[in-house]
Amino acid sequence: MGYALRARRLGIDTYQQPVAYMRRDCAVCRAEGFEAQSRVELLCGARVVTATLNVTDGDLLEGQEIGLSEAAWEALGASPGAAVTVRHPAPLASFAAVRGKIHGRPLDDAAAQAIVGDIVGGRYPDIHLSSLITACSGNRLDLAETIALTRAMAAAGKHMSWPASVVVDKHCVGGLPGNRTTLLVVPIVAACGMTMPKTSSRAITSPAGTADTMETLAPVAIGIDAMRRVVEQEGGCIVWGGSVTLSPADDVLIRVERPLELDSDGLLVASVLSKKLAAGASHVLIDIPVGRTAKVRSDQAARDLAARLEAAGRALGLAVRCVLSDGSQPVGVGIGPALEAMDVLAVLQGQAGAPQDLRQRALALAAGVLELGGRAAPGAGLALAAQVLDSGAAWAKFQAICAAQGGLREPPVAPCTHALPARHAGRVVGIDNRKLATLAKLAGAPRAAAAGVRFFAPLGSRLEVGQPMLSIHAESPGELAYALEYAEAQSNLVTVEDA
Amino acid sequence: MGYALRARRLGIDTYQQPVAYMRRDCAVCRAEGFEAQSRVELLCGARVVTATLNVTDGDLLEGQEIGLSEAAWEALGASPGAAVTVRHPAPLASFAAVRGKIHGRPLDDAAAQAIVGDIVGGRYPDIHLSSLITACSGNRLDLAETIALTRAMAAAGKHMSWPASVVVDKHCVGGLPGNRTTLLVVPIVAACGMTMPKTSSRAITSPAGTADTMETLAPVAIGIDAMRRVVEQEGGCIVWGGSVTLSPADDVLIRVERPLELDSDGLLVASVLSKKLAAGASHVLIDIPVGRTAKVRSDQAARDLAARLEAAGRALGLAVRCVLSDGSQPVGVGIGPALEAMDVLAVLQGQAGAPQDLRQRALALAAGVLELGGRAAPGAGLALAAQVLDSGAAWAKFQAICAAQGGLREPPVAPCTHALPARHAGRVVGIDNRKLATLAKLAGAPRAAAAGVRFFAPLGSRLEVGQPMLSIHAESPGELAYALEYAEAQSNLVTVEDA
Repeated sequence: MGYALRARRLGIDTYQQPVAYMRRDCAVCRAEGFEAQSRVELLCGARVVTATLNVTDGDLLEGQEIGLSEAAWEALGASPGAAVTVRHPAPLASFAAVRGKIHGRPLDDAAAQAIVGDIVGGRYPDIHLSSLITACSGNRLDLAETIALTRAMAAAGKHMSWPASVVVDKHCVGGLPGNRTTLLVVPIVAACGMTMPKTSSRAITSPAGTADTMETLAPVAIGIDAMRRVVEQEGGCIVWGGSVTLSPADDVLIRVERPLELDSDGLLVASVLSKKLAAGASHVLIDIPVGRTAKVRSDQAARDLAARLEAAGRALGLAVRCVLSDGSQPVGVGIGPALEAMDVLAVLQGQAGAPQDLRQRALALAAGVLELGGRAAPGAGLALAAQVLDSGAAWAKFQAICAAQGGLREPPVAPCTHALPARHAGRVVGIDNRKLATLAKLAGAPRAAAAGVRFFAPLGSRLEVGQPMLSIHAESPGELAYALEYAEAQSNLVTVEDA
Repeated sequence: MGYALRARRLGIDTYQQPVAYMRRDCAVCRAEGFEAQSRVELLCGARVVTATLNVTDGDLLEGQEIGLSEAAWEALGASPGAAVTVRHPAPLASFAAVRGKIHGRPLDDAAAQAIVGDIVGGRYPDIHLSSLITACSGNRLDLAETIALTRAMAAAGKHMSWPASVVVDKHCVGGLPGNRTTLLVVPIVAACGMTMPKTSSRAITSPAGTADTMETLAPVAIGIDAMRRVVEQEGGCIVWGGSVTLSPADDVLIRVERPLELDSDGLLVASVLSKKLAAGASHVLIDIPVGRTAKVRSDQAARDLAARLEAAGRALGLAVRCVLSDGSQPVGVGIGPALEAMDVLAVLQGQAGAPQDLRQRALALAAGVLELGGRAAPGAGLALAAQVLDSGAAWAKFQAICAAQGGLREPPVAPCTHALPARHAGRVVGIDNRKLATLAKLAGAPRAAAAGVRFFAPLGSRLEVGQPMLSIHAESPGELAYALEYAEAQSNLVTVEDA
């Protein structure tokens, strides 16, 4: 059962959500009882897409036309005037398991597979994705459910395998502005001859993801074949996970998690480990920064998360080791894709003013990876990592990786900046990481790559009244004004105490 | 800070969600960093609306134009070419309380007020509404939270008051197809001289809400002033709650609850009692059907819900009494707005084939209302209700109410019907109410008023192979086929046992 209409590209970008536009008085709407917000299944040639319907009155469309949003047009591979058949989609049966979960019934393997299959097939509307994410947040997934989801998510994507028997990886659970260690760990470890096929995500709730930062230095959306070539040639890479579809369900979930600013331990484990599994890793080191305003706020929460990650890893055949790190303040100076990239370059190149905290964190993590993967004896990793960084070998490897990914480039510089002076004198005793992150996001990060914050007031430093505490960087005057308005309304971005 | 564009009505119906369309290359998008799916605040004259942005490429819009969806156009009261200013909305601060709730922190009065205020102000995107609904589902709201939400929702809407000191109301928590007792209880009670200003909702997850059914007999979207006149003249009314905005936050929540098919005890209590409070009721009788496939599945769950309703009522100054009723099978014959209306008319008119189960349930509830409100002595309500129904006084009152609401009319009849024969002989021992409801919805109910199911196989009845078990009614062949396909794939709509 279905009716054919003629495809018309309306040029409307709905951000990844397929939307179809049909005249209220067209034969299909009348015959099938479709109305605004109906879910419809569209067929064009061999392609099938589930879309949300918007109905139109007036002359936007002709009688036999169906308008398509950019996402729908691309997913259907449509051409102007192509025949598009429209029909009712099958009921979304897997959502019954989500409803069950909300009412306390655990997700089992079959439910996880069905849900992930429907998500990857584009059959979950955004409000259903939001409901699933909420139902899994607040520590509502137990270990068995986490493993089931991880396995289903990894199985839904592409798989990579490597000649090396040991394939290492690292991950940071995030929440700490500027903590861009991956761009240092990968070249150090690869320069030591290990295989490290690193995929990273774009920002979820932060002002910059590793992929966003790396993208200011080299192409990251290079696809799985190019990724394979880069790793075969250089031993390591830093590419955007979304372009290699190792965990396509996770890519969809992140789109809705971001505006909700919701994190879930279970979803986090599934997101991280599904991608590591699919990327062919055998040994994974995970950095968990802990701080009052970091993503993980207490040692207990960090230990719980670490236990979850390690146990799920064991069940799935991955050697996972977690390290807890200081999450009390931003790392380095820059917050935002390009500003963080500049910090990374300073460390790689051994510049005089390079942020030492970023350097130390990266060396410690590189050491952990080298030891976990057996390249360095226990306790010997740090010296090896420092030697590779200080000798310039890591910088040479980073340049080679960038060249292999498509070419090293200069990070962009923001045209609009504004320095924010301290209002009180004293010693810095507290920093609100979340508010700093919000400020960088209001300034445009991560979408605007040059936007963000440079932060000059680490814990323990002494501020005088009027001394710049931070500077805001934006690509447009409107965003600069918006961020500045927020900054001036906050009383406790930084807490100072009389010294 | 803001930029003005010229309003253009695109004639796109997005179902109540304001959407703005702007060219990717327009000055506003570039200066403000807006992109697809950004939230934007639109100002036109004195009106303000928060909308979701879709960006356009190509020639859909001219450079200085902003396209508006129907919901945005109406909310702004725009005219062609009117100046619309676009700016960043303030961050959605109240959602922090929802995030807190997801992580286990209870909602307090201030949080409930802030959330409800932002919902009524149109500042919650659908995915945030979905997250809130999910966070409140599965019995996650305690009594204090329920009371806080109820109070906030009632305070956000209009308020009615009446000269009578006793103002009665009734409500059914739903889940039982065809249980359309309100259309009988209101005329019986009003014919006894009581004041019963009844507002009803449209279907949330069912194939017909009371407002949907009543609308096939008389106008229900009549607004608060007309409602007041009808009640002053006739003592009672049956109008659509959404048209009198007694609980505008609830109207918004229902739009998202419906496609999710999620129910929450706490949200249910807040939804019901906020509207009763705002409608000026003093005494409320609540019918809770209990059955394996009804909305409430066990006596324990029903007692918990009743306790919650009565306790919240006490805290808010409402006398609430709950009655548990049999929810094992549909009531009457029809399922769907017009088909249920025909059952109601048969009972009111005392027709020979009128469904006795519907009649008995309505009499019992009317008796409860008459006794709760003090119009009948305890134990004397049933005789009074039966006398008023059998004398024709209730039918006369119903006609008078319909006339006052705008005129009694004939329910529509579906052009497409198909009888589904029994595949096995035997005695009916089980009925899946949920699947029957799904079947009626797939046939088009409640949007298509004539659509639904007529059900001929009550519990205990004897079926022969080939005997019609039910008939499907649809307004279009496509929907008939869609529903039939579902019906034929089910093995247990009805369970029979060898007699």
